[in-house]
Amino acid sequence: MPVKPEILKVTPTARSRLFQIEEMELRFSNGVERTYERLSNRGRGAVMVIALTAMNEVLLIREYAAGLEDYLLTLPKGLIDPGEDALQAADRELKEEAGYGAHQIKPLRVLTTAPNYMGHQLTVVIARELYPCKLEGDEPEPMELVRWPLDRLDELVWQEDFSEARAIAALLLTRDLINKGEL
Amino acid sequence: MPVKPEILKVTPTARSRLFQIEEMELRFSNGVERTYERLSNRGRGAVMVIALTAMNEVLLIREYAAGLEDYLLTLPKGLIDPGEDALQAADRELKEEAGYGAHQIKPLRVLTTAPNYMGHQLTVVIARELYPCKLEGDEPEPMELVRWPLDRLDELVWQEDFSEARAIAALLLTRDLINKGEL
Repeated sequence: MPVKPEILKVTPTARSRLFQIEEMELRFSNGVERTYERLSNRGRGAVMVIALTAMNEVLLIREYAAGLEDYLLTLPKGLIDPGEDALQAADRELKEEAGYGAHQIKPLRVLTTAPNYMGHQLTVVIARELYPCKLEGDEPEPMELVRWPLDRLDELVWQEDFSEARAIAALLLTRDLINKGEL
Repeated sequence: MPVKPEILKVTPTARSRLFQIEEMELRFSNGVERTYERLSNRGRGAVMVIALTAMNEVLLIREYAAGLEDYLLTLPKGLIDPGEDALQAADRELKEEAGYGAHQIKPLRVLTTAPNYMGHQLTVVIARELYPCKLEGDEPEPMELVRWPLDRLDELVWQEDFSEARAIAALLLTRDLINKGEL
């Protein structure tokens, strides 16, 4: 493995309610110095939930995505709250966004989003043995719940309104495990 | 499809060299008003390249990811420069980061990164019929090039140092097409 660059200095340059931007002065192992910008890592990370029903469906939600100014189909997801671990956050988000709890819940893998300029890590969680349970979240409107058959994932991952790379990666990794009989 | 919320106002709240943050006042169709924050969309988008060799390998690079403060394996990628389209940017990035050009290059699909708070869109491009051609980019150090056999993708997508969701999604979508004989 290459020798990591030395971090000479990290300076906050701008901040808002949610985001903080920082400059990072680096000296690479070949002596080259560079200043990079990144979003600083203020949170405890996030979770994304693959909730599988007894009918071999995955639960999707249709949610307004402010970055795209449009509704997208995606997986239930959200930030880990103070005092929660990833599995607790996944269970809560599933109750808030999809109206289900899960008797069985386990981590699948950790994904990064845009690691060149964000430290954000997302834990993908598999939830099974679902039961109806609605928690009130901070959503401005109820989300449409869509039950998608696992044997039609091929269609979903090419749909224009299912564009979020993290959700596509999470579902295709899950299918891999199912195909190998490891789930 | 649900009725999109009305965008009442968009206000820039912080900016740095690379990033601009804005507040977005929304009125959802049920009358609920909310203020969201997002990174504004200043660029022309980005590309990620699946470069396939005649030996059925995909070209990976090992690059320092400032957000994670570590080296990661990933696919060649970068921003679309002024005057370029996605295919031209992909060809240039492949030359800069991997040292190859491509006689055949075509779009696979568009992925979003974190659509709830970023408008960023990434065009995944398939490059084939490769030939050696090195362009100087702005990289602080040469990147290690790794040739990964397509029949061992199963291993790669679970590796801890190959965590970028966009790269995992791009590779698994490519494998899907190969398996269906559509590539």
